[in-house]
Amino acid sequence: MNKTTRRILIVGGVAGGASCAARARRLCEKCEIVIFDRGPHVSFANCGLPYFVGEVIQQEEKLLVASPALFSDRFNIGVHTETEVLSIDRDNKSILVRDLNSGEERTEHYDALVLSPGARAIRPPLPGIDLPGIHVLRNIPDSQRIRAALKHAKRAVIVGGGFIGLEMAENLSGLGLNLTLIEKTAQVMPPLDPEMTVPIADRLIAEGVDLRLGVGVTAFAEMPQGGLTVTLDNGDSVETDIVILAIGVQPETSLAVAAGIELGERGGIKVDASMRTNDRAIWAVGDAVEVNDLITGVSQPIPLAGPANRQGRIAATSIIGGHPELQFRGVQATAICGVFGLTVASTGASEKSLIRCGNLAYEKVYLHPGSHVSYFPGATPIHIKLLFSSDDGRILGAQALGENGVARRIDVLSMAIQMGATVYDLEESELCYAPQFGAAKDPVNFAGMIAANHLRGDLPLAHWEDIADTQAKIIDVRSPAEYERRHLPGALNIPLESIRQRLSDIPSDQEVWLICEVGQRAYYATRLLMQNGYKVRVLSGGMKSWDFISRSAL
Amino acid sequence: MNKTTRRILIVGGVAGGASCAARARRLCEKCEIVIFDRGPHVSFANCGLPYFVGEVIQQEEKLLVASPALFSDRFNIGVHTETEVLSIDRDNKSILVRDLNSGEERTEHYDALVLSPGARAIRPPLPGIDLPGIHVLRNIPDSQRIRAALKHAKRAVIVGGGFIGLEMAENLSGLGLNLTLIEKTAQVMPPLDPEMTVPIADRLIAEGVDLRLGVGVTAFAEMPQGGLTVTLDNGDSVETDIVILAIGVQPETSLAVAAGIELGERGGIKVDASMRTNDRAIWAVGDAVEVNDLITGVSQPIPLAGPANRQGRIAATSIIGGHPELQFRGVQATAICGVFGLTVASTGASEKSLIRCGNLAYEKVYLHPGSHVSYFPGATPIHIKLLFSSDDGRILGAQALGENGVARRIDVLSMAIQMGATVYDLEESELCYAPQFGAAKDPVNFAGMIAANHLRGDLPLAHWEDIADTQAKIIDVRSPAEYERRHLPGALNIPLESIRQRLSDIPSDQEVWLICEVGQRAYYATRLLMQNGYKVRVLSGGMKSWDFISRSAL
Repeated sequence: MNKTTRRILIVGGVAGGASCAARARRLCEKCEIVIFDRGPHVSFANCGLPYFVGEVIQQEEKLLVASPALFSDRFNIGVHTETEVLSIDRDNKSILVRDLNSGEERTEHYDALVLSPGARAIRPPLPGIDLPGIHVLRNIPDSQRIRAALKHAKRAVIVGGGFIGLEMAENLSGLGLNLTLIEKTAQVMPPLDPEMTVPIADRLIAEGVDLRLGVGVTAFAEMPQGGLTVTLDNGDSVETDIVILAIGVQPETSLAVAAGIELGERGGIKVDASMRTNDRAIWAVGDAVEVNDLITGVSQPIPLAGPANRQGRIAATSIIGGHPELQFRGVQATAICGVFGLTVASTGASEKSLIRCGNLAYEKVYLHPGSHVSYFPGATPIHIKLLFSSDDGRILGAQALGENGVARRIDVLSMAIQMGATVYDLEESELCYAPQFGAAKDPVNFAGMIAANHLRGDLPLAHWEDIADTQAKIIDVRSPAEYERRHLPGALNIPLESIRQRLSDIPSDQEVWLICEVGQRAYYATRLLMQNGYKVRVLSGGMKSWDFISRSAL
Repeated sequence: MNKTTRRILIVGGVAGGASCAARARRLCEKCEIVIFDRGPHVSFANCGLPYFVGEVIQQEEKLLVASPALFSDRFNIGVHTETEVLSIDRDNKSILVRDLNSGEERTEHYDALVLSPGARAIRPPLPGIDLPGIHVLRNIPDSQRIRAALKHAKRAVIVGGGFIGLEMAENLSGLGLNLTLIEKTAQVMPPLDPEMTVPIADRLIAEGVDLRLGVGVTAFAEMPQGGLTVTLDNGDSVETDIVILAIGVQPETSLAVAAGIELGERGGIKVDASMRTNDRAIWAVGDAVEVNDLITGVSQPIPLAGPANRQGRIAATSIIGGHPELQFRGVQATAICGVFGLTVASTGASEKSLIRCGNLAYEKVYLHPGSHVSYFPGATPIHIKLLFSSDDGRILGAQALGENGVARRIDVLSMAIQMGATVYDLEESELCYAPQFGAAKDPVNFAGMIAANHLRGDLPLAHWEDIADTQAKIIDVRSPAEYERRHLPGALNIPLESIRQRLSDIPSDQEVWLICEVGQRAYYATRLLMQNGYKVRVLSGGMKSWDFISRSAL
């Protein structure tokens, strides 16, 4: 399409759609650009909704990133809210729209059509699912309904322990509600590996949330005296005043499907790297499309705001023409969530997804460095899991959680993954250091050093998964006091400081697995023992990782 | 050297030296490893000294990262503190050492020698420079002397506005002293470009620091009634109770020079990528060596703790042998400083250094994004300057300052520089986003998008340096109220929203330079005007950048 083309119509005016419209205007002053949205708002901050419910964001206007008037005055973009697009006539390049207030229908011609319909909350077909007390949170009207309902609520049940579920837990707790969080899988925060979510579960429980993991909902019912009963598949039931349903979303593809637009294998709209569908005049962006996972190559819908915005920008560029190098590269699934003071973030592949995918040989390390040097007040641990290629050291994914400094390390690792960096690059990274900001060896450096030491053969790793079956002798090199506090069954305690004197206590005819609190002393001991001829492995992350792993579904 | 070699001697046991010793032990259990240090401590946290003086770090023990006993018990490494190395006999591979307590001298043989002598504070030969009230801060005894002197001090003069000077300003202010900060150049924080330091100067002044920029010290004198007079080269003088001299450091090379070890052009010990000197049996690491700047290629001493630690690790690897791929890649000069709640950080080249170097065609953008989305409470601006190749978009350097989120963005950009990323990569970066943590378009994305828009020709940039001489018409596209508050001399006000109606007011026969508050609206106006045939440039960073630039020595 060249600049003589006139009409760009955009279905859905949030994130990807709004970005696409504004970018199209910047590239083509003469085009006619019109946004249609079923809802009352365009370009609203859907990521802020849990915080608006929680009254952290107090004014609804704050959520309106750009009003229809701003689109009109600043960008000369037409916006039709409360206008539903009913169908696409691809042959005639037109859409049928209905004004939801007047009920009037009309046909709008397009030269380029952009589908940005988003995703809708999944509402499983359970008995009572449509009862008035059961809410989803996808837009401002949803949040208004929840706020209204909360005025008379003392108890809430959140179904689903993903991002929205956890953010809602924090916000509803902040409003003083008694909370039950029900999650069907054995862990909260599904993008993470199970062992990395244990501290989140601990935090939820410490904050008074009644956490029910591995439990599904089978029915909702109204109680005669008001309120709802939520029946669970383990026979329990929970009484509540309000239910927040946050079990995920699914791409909104009905319009596309009806028009014969091709979907991908996982049900999202299929697009190329220019965000173009199988119809040359139709593009699609945002939560409704399938995108390639940069690490695993799997094509799937990944509902994230950042990629949606970039997709909108790329679609507009493709529509107007020029800059053919601006292509969507895929999604790393970088994500972050704040929950009761903990920050949880991840980028790239999880171990679960690598196992599911099955085509990448990987290794993993755990570490628990401080957010900054221990000699400066206020340092808190960051729990990190780094996944990397066991072939060439390429970084495949990272997960981290802690009180401070988590976003920073995951962002650095996200950039590293984007650029194809290896663990050897992490070893040599030069990151900000002053005592209150980090360490001369930053957590990112440490992650790289541990992984590189392993790949070089200097630090053979044992796998926690094998600990139940191993014939190896486990030696704990912490102090006797630490050992007394807790230790692995069958572990022999030889403190690092006395290991040179006690070599004869260490079996030389079998493999030895070393453990300490976080992994550092075990590493020192490994080097010492390897050079004395022992066959040694290290349990990465030490007892601190065991604290998580032993309590997870790993 | 192979593993049969016995004795590794290390001169200087802080940062690089301590890292080298520990790494050498991990790689070679049978080697004899001995550290000599002139001072009373090894492996102390010199970066923490300003905070120990300021009583943010309260216990001196906290500064001792590893004691001689720990080196001995854990690593079987000998430590001789208060032991000076007097000379190196390269032919006989031995050093002459003196026990500073007993005065006894002895010769120690080495197979490998590591020089990690560090740098010493520069003390210019001014009258009175050796008066007792004048302090430098390089080690724990220095900090103890300063703490003792502060007991009777109400006023302090800090000479030097670099990292240590600013950290000392924050800490001494925290102790309630009246402060004067004297800096010979026209800006604080010399690694940054001058315009980026204006907010730091403002903050110092707001915190009550008497800041004297562009002023040198000519003499110190004792006053009869006690205290010191500091005489300045502008004729002023300042009375004080204590002086902190923080005008920089110079490599401690006397031992190396006397032994004929080669120095680099800028006076640091010359080493190869394995940290080896011109003597095959001698390595050198840390503040005493010259390293290549990764961006400019210039070889110079760059005293930073992170590189020193990595160098120690690499030197040890080279000494023991194996892993020849572990080489020092050079320094990006990533650095960070906290000063009165502001965080200031940079990585890669500054514009000053690019001009000085002269061999790289570069361009720059300024931006002032929020630390997170504006709709979530608590967002504060981050002022960013990004330098990139005007040939291929490769990122050359970045500077940032603000209250929050600064370390994170500079660390991401540091990783980007390390991996050879371009501004096009920054456009497509996928970073952590939730409302309290960032934005769907992160500041790093924005920096990349602005720079890439420029390189693609969609956003031609005007240079602030040319503003005094330009014949271009300057058009300010902010609102009339914003324009009234302040504007560039001669700027015509046409708000973005009315620009489509007022095209006839814009001269089409001359270049037009557009400005707004931070650059975004000027960008929109640029796109609009360019497509209407106007020749347009944008003043990057808008009035917010002008606030800094107009008050700097740029």
